[in-house]
Amino acid sequence: MPKRVYSSLCFETHPSIYSFASIAGQKEGEGPMRNYFDQIQQDASFGEKNWEKAESRLQSETFQLALQKARLKPFDIDCMVAGDLINQCTGSSFAVRETKIPFLGVYGACSTMAESLLLAGMLVDGGYSFRTAAVTSSHFSTAERQFRFPLSYGGQRTPTSQWTCTASGAAIVSSEGGAPYLMGGCIGKINDLGVTDSTNMGAAMAPAAADTIQRYLGDTKTCPEDYDAIVTGDLGNIGSPLLIDLLLKQNVDISRVHQDCGSLMFDEQQQDTHAGGSGCGCSASILCGYFLPKLQNNEFKKILFAATGALLSAMSPQQGESIPGICHLVEIRSEEGLHS
Amino acid sequence: MPKRVYSSLCFETHPSIYSFASIAGQKEGEGPMRNYFDQIQQDASFGEKNWEKAESRLQSETFQLALQKARLKPFDIDCMVAGDLINQCTGSSFAVRETKIPFLGVYGACSTMAESLLLAGMLVDGGYSFRTAAVTSSHFSTAERQFRFPLSYGGQRTPTSQWTCTASGAAIVSSEGGAPYLMGGCIGKINDLGVTDSTNMGAAMAPAAADTIQRYLGDTKTCPEDYDAIVTGDLGNIGSPLLIDLLLKQNVDISRVHQDCGSLMFDEQQQDTHAGGSGCGCSASILCGYFLPKLQNNEFKKILFAATGALLSAMSPQQGESIPGICHLVEIRSEEGLHS
Repeated sequence: MPKRVYSSLCFETHPSIYSFASIAGQKEGEGPMRNYFDQIQQDASFGEKNWEKAESRLQSETFQLALQKARLKPFDIDCMVAGDLINQCTGSSFAVRETKIPFLGVYGACSTMAESLLLAGMLVDGGYSFRTAAVTSSHFSTAERQFRFPLSYGGQRTPTSQWTCTASGAAIVSSEGGAPYLMGGCIGKINDLGVTDSTNMGAAMAPAAADTIQRYLGDTKTCPEDYDAIVTGDLGNIGSPLLIDLLLKQNVDISRVHQDCGSLMFDEQQQDTHAGGSGCGCSASILCGYFLPKLQNNEFKKILFAATGALLSAMSPQQGESIPGICHLVEIRSEEGLHS
Repeated sequence: MPKRVYSSLCFETHPSIYSFASIAGQKEGEGPMRNYFDQIQQDASFGEKNWEKAESRLQSETFQLALQKARLKPFDIDCMVAGDLINQCTGSSFAVRETKIPFLGVYGACSTMAESLLLAGMLVDGGYSFRTAAVTSSHFSTAERQFRFPLSYGGQRTPTSQWTCTASGAAIVSSEGGAPYLMGGCIGKINDLGVTDSTNMGAAMAPAAADTIQRYLGDTKTCPEDYDAIVTGDLGNIGSPLLIDLLLKQNVDISRVHQDCGSLMFDEQQQDTHAGGSGCGCSASILCGYFLPKLQNNEFKKILFAATGALLSAMSPQQGESIPGICHLVEIRSEEGLHS
């Protein structure tokens, strides 16, 4: 079986997602996903003295939890692919530092969990690693003060803005083990249709999601109904209908199977989060908390996990730049899904 | 042949570095490497209206030059692995945006070129890509104002500080083609011995370089004399002797074959650059300008390219954090080196 089919990748050994874990913050733990996370941490500081250290602690604890669930030790993991939203990805560097695990730092904004899983899949399927961890995090307070305003400023949020989640997800991809299985995926292309409003990232990312999903469905000659869910990461309540419209114009109707992690995370009416959740940890924690368990118990057989990212900095919109969107995709199957 | 030997990777198909290019800025073009770069650009703005756009232009032009040298078009490249030092890696995102090439963003600070080449090697050797480009850049003016002081402030530089190079290197790794060849490599571990002086990054990165080089030599059962050069990226004039000392304590003497891109870039006496060059573009441009041509014409047979990175942000030292160092390594051989 070829490992590359047009612009999509095929993992012929279908690596196992051997273990996975999710930790979420207080607000995320009060939303519709509250019963699915492994842990909900009420203290946003995670016992640390600043928000950046708190995010590193969150990411580190999520990884440790994934290890514990599989009775693994750090030295059982031969590579770690990790990323976050903090400048120079220090959230991940400081989290990985103590583990002494070979480390590949990646940056894909909120698409980072899909990028990390794609790379972990290649490392394991290609024979370069026995077990690679894919870990990402985000923290409301690190993102708010870095990308927007100091927390104490109490700035007003626009209706289209999304709420960066305090959350983390960790998945250990292994050459041995059972379902869920990583089947392959599609590396995202940058799509930029000129959206310049950095408080409307769902709109900026929807074209990238449409492009990647359409390419993967085309390359694998599958249709939306072949999947129990086509999960986007963080398009939110504004970007999700845009994605469905964009694909409908190409005669692809994902409306019956589409779910978006940004929309799943919060109750828009009750939690005042406007267009939904976002951040590397949003889709990562919902994948590891909600979707992977459903694939483990065969409730779902096949899903596409298409995490989206907005590749802007705090400075780039001020320099008049539009917002480049990207979307990386991985296909994940249950035991029954593998044999169907 | 196994693809993983202890903690090192082996590319059994030895992908070709099919084409490569380097572009450097004015100051870099006045140093000892001036005759080796493909182009030297006198205008630091690269015709753009701000430094960040200038860096994107620099990276984009270097990639285009690598394409031209091989008579390739963007659609001949099926993946791009790229990174830089700007917050959220926007230097690369905006450079890649127009190409419509599937894009994996990475962050490894000044080690990014070795990380990109490792990933490009895995993508091609693993059969997931026919041609993957590895591209990195740095720009003195984007780095200075982001990590240190506004340029117009005219801050005094400490004796141990390094000069972020305005430079970029691009290499196209291909499943078909001749020398130089990517033979394998080693993914870096974070080493942090507690250096907190962000103006002495050579010292912060030397332990990581020692760790990675020692692991690779051990895993491949080779000694320093087996290589024409063991090239580190950007340890500079302070970090290089530290690396040699650290390895000597482990009975590994690399002193006769060690070369450092940070030290090679500038003439310390004439150019007032203190401890040497740094930045993702420093080691990338010297690899693509100086070392790869020597491997292409068999002047060198085997080299190790071990680029080092300091995984700090502008904020992390202010929060009392020490500086995590990392070093990724790739082995590259000439046609004769492949058969010896």
